[in-house]
Amino acid sequence: MKRTMPLVILGLLILGLFPAWTPPDEGMWMMNQLGKLPWKQMESYGMKLTPEQLFDTSATCLSRAIVLVDGGTGSFVSANGLIITNHHVAFGGIQSVSSVQEDYLKNGFNATTKDQEISLPTYNAEIVTGIADITKDVLAGVNDTMAAASRADAIRGKIREIENAHRHGQLPDTIYRVSEMYNGIKYYLFEYSVLRDVRLVYAPPSAIGNYGGEVDNWMWPRHTGDFSFLRAYVAPDGKHAAYSVNNVPYHPTVFLPLSNKPIEDSSFAMILGFPGRTFRYRTYAEIQLSENELLPLQMKLFKQRMDIIERASKNDRATEIKYSNLYRGIANTEKNIDGTLEGMRRSDILGERKAREQSFEEFLKGDPNRQQRFGEIIPQIAALYERYKTFDQKQIVLASLLSSPTVMRLGSEMNEVALSFKKDAEGKERPDSTRMAALKRTLSSTYKNFDPAIDRQFLEIILNDALNLPAAQRIEAVQKIVGDKTGEDRVKKISEFVDDLYKHTKLVNQDDAMALAEKSADDIRDDDAVRFASELQKENAPITAQTNEFNNTISRLRGSLMEAYMAWKGSDIYPDANRTLRFTYGIVEPYHPRDAVTYSYRTTLSGVMEKETNEDPFIVPPKLRDLWEKKDFGPYADPTIHDVTVAFIADLDITGGNSGSPVMNGNGELIGVAFDGNWEAVVGDYLYQEPLNRTISVDSRYVLFILDKFSNAKNVLDELVIK
Amino acid sequence: MKRTMPLVILGLLILGLFPAWTPPDEGMWMMNQLGKLPWKQMESYGMKLTPEQLFDTSATCLSRAIVLVDGGTGSFVSANGLIITNHHVAFGGIQSVSSVQEDYLKNGFNATTKDQEISLPTYNAEIVTGIADITKDVLAGVNDTMAAASRADAIRGKIREIENAHRHGQLPDTIYRVSEMYNGIKYYLFEYSVLRDVRLVYAPPSAIGNYGGEVDNWMWPRHTGDFSFLRAYVAPDGKHAAYSVNNVPYHPTVFLPLSNKPIEDSSFAMILGFPGRTFRYRTYAEIQLSENELLPLQMKLFKQRMDIIERASKNDRATEIKYSNLYRGIANTEKNIDGTLEGMRRSDILGERKAREQSFEEFLKGDPNRQQRFGEIIPQIAALYERYKTFDQKQIVLASLLSSPTVMRLGSEMNEVALSFKKDAEGKERPDSTRMAALKRTLSSTYKNFDPAIDRQFLEIILNDALNLPAAQRIEAVQKIVGDKTGEDRVKKISEFVDDLYKHTKLVNQDDAMALAEKSADDIRDDDAVRFASELQKENAPITAQTNEFNNTISRLRGSLMEAYMAWKGSDIYPDANRTLRFTYGIVEPYHPRDAVTYSYRTTLSGVMEKETNEDPFIVPPKLRDLWEKKDFGPYADPTIHDVTVAFIADLDITGGNSGSPVMNGNGELIGVAFDGNWEAVVGDYLYQEPLNRTISVDSRYVLFILDKFSNAKNVLDELVIK
Repeated sequence: MKRTMPLVILGLLILGLFPAWTPPDEGMWMMNQLGKLPWKQMESYGMKLTPEQLFDTSATCLSRAIVLVDGGTGSFVSANGLIITNHHVAFGGIQSVSSVQEDYLKNGFNATTKDQEISLPTYNAEIVTGIADITKDVLAGVNDTMAAASRADAIRGKIREIENAHRHGQLPDTIYRVSEMYNGIKYYLFEYSVLRDVRLVYAPPSAIGNYGGEVDNWMWPRHTGDFSFLRAYVAPDGKHAAYSVNNVPYHPTVFLPLSNKPIEDSSFAMILGFPGRTFRYRTYAEIQLSENELLPLQMKLFKQRMDIIERASKNDRATEIKYSNLYRGIANTEKNIDGTLEGMRRSDILGERKAREQSFEEFLKGDPNRQQRFGEIIPQIAALYERYKTFDQKQIVLASLLSSPTVMRLGSEMNEVALSFKKDAEGKERPDSTRMAALKRTLSSTYKNFDPAIDRQFLEIILNDALNLPAAQRIEAVQKIVGDKTGEDRVKKISEFVDDLYKHTKLVNQDDAMALAEKSADDIRDDDAVRFASELQKENAPITAQTNEFNNTISRLRGSLMEAYMAWKGSDIYPDANRTLRFTYGIVEPYHPRDAVTYSYRTTLSGVMEKETNEDPFIVPPKLRDLWEKKDFGPYADPTIHDVTVAFIADLDITGGNSGSPVMNGNGELIGVAFDGNWEAVVGDYLYQEPLNRTISVDSRYVLFILDKFSNAKNVLDELVIK
Repeated sequence: MKRTMPLVILGLLILGLFPAWTPPDEGMWMMNQLGKLPWKQMESYGMKLTPEQLFDTSATCLSRAIVLVDGGTGSFVSANGLIITNHHVAFGGIQSVSSVQEDYLKNGFNATTKDQEISLPTYNAEIVTGIADITKDVLAGVNDTMAAASRADAIRGKIREIENAHRHGQLPDTIYRVSEMYNGIKYYLFEYSVLRDVRLVYAPPSAIGNYGGEVDNWMWPRHTGDFSFLRAYVAPDGKHAAYSVNNVPYHPTVFLPLSNKPIEDSSFAMILGFPGRTFRYRTYAEIQLSENELLPLQMKLFKQRMDIIERASKNDRATEIKYSNLYRGIANTEKNIDGTLEGMRRSDILGERKAREQSFEEFLKGDPNRQQRFGEIIPQIAALYERYKTFDQKQIVLASLLSSPTVMRLGSEMNEVALSFKKDAEGKERPDSTRMAALKRTLSSTYKNFDPAIDRQFLEIILNDALNLPAAQRIEAVQKIVGDKTGEDRVKKISEFVDDLYKHTKLVNQDDAMALAEKSADDIRDDDAVRFASELQKENAPITAQTNEFNNTISRLRGSLMEAYMAWKGSDIYPDANRTLRFTYGIVEPYHPRDAVTYSYRTTLSGVMEKETNEDPFIVPPKLRDLWEKKDFGPYADPTIHDVTVAFIADLDITGGNSGSPVMNGNGELIGVAFDGNWEAVVGDYLYQEPLNRTISVDSRYVLFILDKFSNAKNVLDELVIK
């Protein structure tokens, strides 16, 4: 098959497939849409289950095996609450229990008995147990003539009211969240069963779980064993509970068997998971600003922090561990933005949106009522973005100033506490107790991953960025530092200011910061970091107000646009992702990333060896090389290629949040764990391109091979059901 | 087809194919070997010609269409002496007639009539008209008991004698060169018909002829239209002559038609051309030193000069043009070394050589006489390399000091002139007239591409390199500059020294340098650059002596090794490349560069558009984009893909020097012009890897399409015979 140009393909999409809105395998479908999907087509791919077997009110439907875990997805794979997810989803947890001495990131972790499993206090696991359309309730008190802000307030109030009405106790088994769909056209109440005691069971060494690191991140072909195992625990009486040594493994109502069968080209695959955010319905004006201004600026802010961490981490493993989770998060987003920008250019997304909007205009012209009702939405969005452009960069840089340097983030929080002081019953000035409790939680968790030398550089570099904002968007508090200085002198002034701030603030040291938190409002405000944060917050206040106004208005306009698009294309379009449970299906499929290049649908252990350079992130553990050299693959080798397959791709429609999702065959057996998208489709959050969009998953046979042959993790293996 | 690991493949080669020595399509064959090649196999691929049709004593054999041109290869493609070669082979010529005003590099060149064709004075074209084995003559006066140096001297003397005996007049139609084969086992006398008036006829703009630039250099998939047309002229009486306005086009006895037919996967392809150098028979010890020491050092020296030129060329097109040819040459070599090093690692060439030599040892063991005769060669080579290691880095850095900065190169040449002063008949001190003439030629041609600011940086950076040589290899003249200074102080000293040198030397200015050349030996020697060059030359003299000794000895040992290998594998092995006419054949074929990746055998015009970034080297001329958008491909589109194919690959065995070679189908029609090898096979100079080695050629249909549709070059088109 000859690869056609993305531009040409786009042309085809616009002309041929746009009327159907979605190409066959595009779409992150809500559970209530399953019945409307082309099930016959799916069955022709290899689907053996019914919509009801995927999701219904019974506790035995497949979706009960799926958990929301630390912003990603996991799935139960044993009767004893074993959860499989990505190494990179468990990463923060593994990092939090690692040290230079016990480096589970580097060396991996394998609990040979249950009592060796380590509690990950910040992790929990949530199972969707119910979904109800509550649109009428939420919108009961609002109408179309209300101002955007009041309407948004009323909706937010109503949502809070509903969520509160469902809240029972401090640590309930079940929690409820209202999720907005189609930018406010629909609202659903999601019921989650929450497991609060999650423990680390198994993680491969990072040389397997993160093989290829940032170099290969977002890339296919990929050779990463990006999986790990957690376990959910409950109280002995079966109640969901926070960690206790007495807790017992949770018994899920459903769990997935792992497939040890070869994955064929063109075979059926599906995913249930929790995609985070997509922007598939954004207009030309919105994408244009993102492509030309917002994304490049954000990328720059990320990149410069990465550079600082990289320099500091060289030859200092302690610092590297401290900042590894932050670095990974930033690097991941930075590369995503980079790929998005490249994808926007290569896919000519602006051309595609222009065409879409012209076609929409044609539709509107067909009926004066439609024109009347929907004709102004897109121009209004464009006009709103013109206004946004007058403060967008200032907003982004101010937000970064107040959050990227830890000292400034703490300074802001401290300043909020200082502002909350009120006379109590006895006339004594006291801070708001909720704020103070939150501050103390922050202070107790922050310093483990803090290095003042790095933090100082974060602040300095963003201050220099602030100096380069367009004249109309300058930040006064920063301009004040440099006065009328120019060139190198400005840079020097900033440097002196930052030196001074880090020399004097109490916030570089946990004990001092804790002590300061106990002081009076005036004492707190007297700290250099708090004072500077306060100045910035004052300047940020009007920006925040403008941003809120913008958000309320754009949100309302986007809702109206969805209404219009539904009038145009029918109401069965899928809503943008919002970290609620979604379904995507498709087939295992190679692709043509560019002229004269074909990428196979699978990679192999030989490919792992081929990439080895003996320099991080391409260091192969000697034992793995040894297994490969001896072809000691156990029953996990692919019989046709006499090699272990490591990863595979399928045209499934996912995004961040889907990380760790089970990829299942038509029988609902786990054939892989999704962990990434491919570079050519990073722009997928904005635009799904059928010929290019692929989900990258680690093959379940690689999981089994590593568990068995590399780690001898009998404990885990014995629990799994292998098909 | 699943790609197998290079390492695994190597294993197969060693076990399965090594006894036959060469896999089917490996080999740069001499003309006298054609009859011994597997012609039946070739015919099964699609070969229609006989060995005699390729080369014999008649003036109508195919080889008469092949010319050696400026270190590359070209071929006649019209009855009027039109030569097709690479854009990058003509590059130096195009550069020499370009300026900021008339930028033929950037804009391309198209002579619409013959009188617009521009003379390229440094170019000539040589046709091989005869080859004779003169081994007996050359070796008549030597024997095996002679010392290596005397033996080498005797051979050199004999070769000079033979070449001189064949030399007739100043600008003869025919010249003779003796070429050594198999490291001195064989000697051949080559007869060349020399065309001395070569003119530029057509060059595409660099946005086509060098599309992808250094980024894509050595890479597949490739989208470069790397071709241009020259024309050979002769005197009106048919005699070969230097440029004259009265000259007339040369009429070759044979020229190649251009094919406009689709090139199919697996179809036959062959090349006649002049490959420069290969090292296929180098031993473990030799490769080890290259991989670990020599190549990395050379790469560093190249890279740092590239960085200097890059920085200086930014925003300065005049400087960019001045240094473009030098930069290209350096960058090309630097990337080649980089790829060679990567290829050495990936192919485990050391493992392969170890296996080869073990297998050779086994062969020797089978016969005490053999063991006696050949058993010591490889250990002796290894021992010789151990000695070479004691001065190799000093040699490389000294050579770079004396040649990379123009001022030092001129200083050296001036110093040689100063040393050549002798009393003439009247007792007056005069320089050697040949040296002086050479110096003046150098001075007259050098300054066009000279910028003292850049040159100064070249010298400074190499001096800093010299400071970092191993203690035993330090250069006294450089150490003297810094004395006992350390760290930054040494760097400063060097910088001051260089400033001083460039401030005082006459060699930064053409007129001053010319004037200096007329002065006395003492005056010349008094110039700062000459003086420093003289100091370096003095230190270089013993190194040169050691190097000569090393070369003579290694050369003799390599000859012995070839003798041994021929005893082992038969005398029909092909000799290493040495810029003599060679034949290679094979098939058009895709390949698998790495796990999960397949590269097609052809690229397309759509791929050109896909790579466009609007930043150099990926700027597509608007007209080319327009043709593509309108699908205005004329009769040149590939009917199955409805696109113009740009380049293709075949498993032909070539190296530098083959650039510009005609790639022919089985009928001897030109289907492409070879211009590069692929990244995965850059190590090919040392090791041919059947599954990876590919020759990259521009498709003749792209040549025709660009000539016709893009450039409207009717003049050229009308002369071509299109099949």
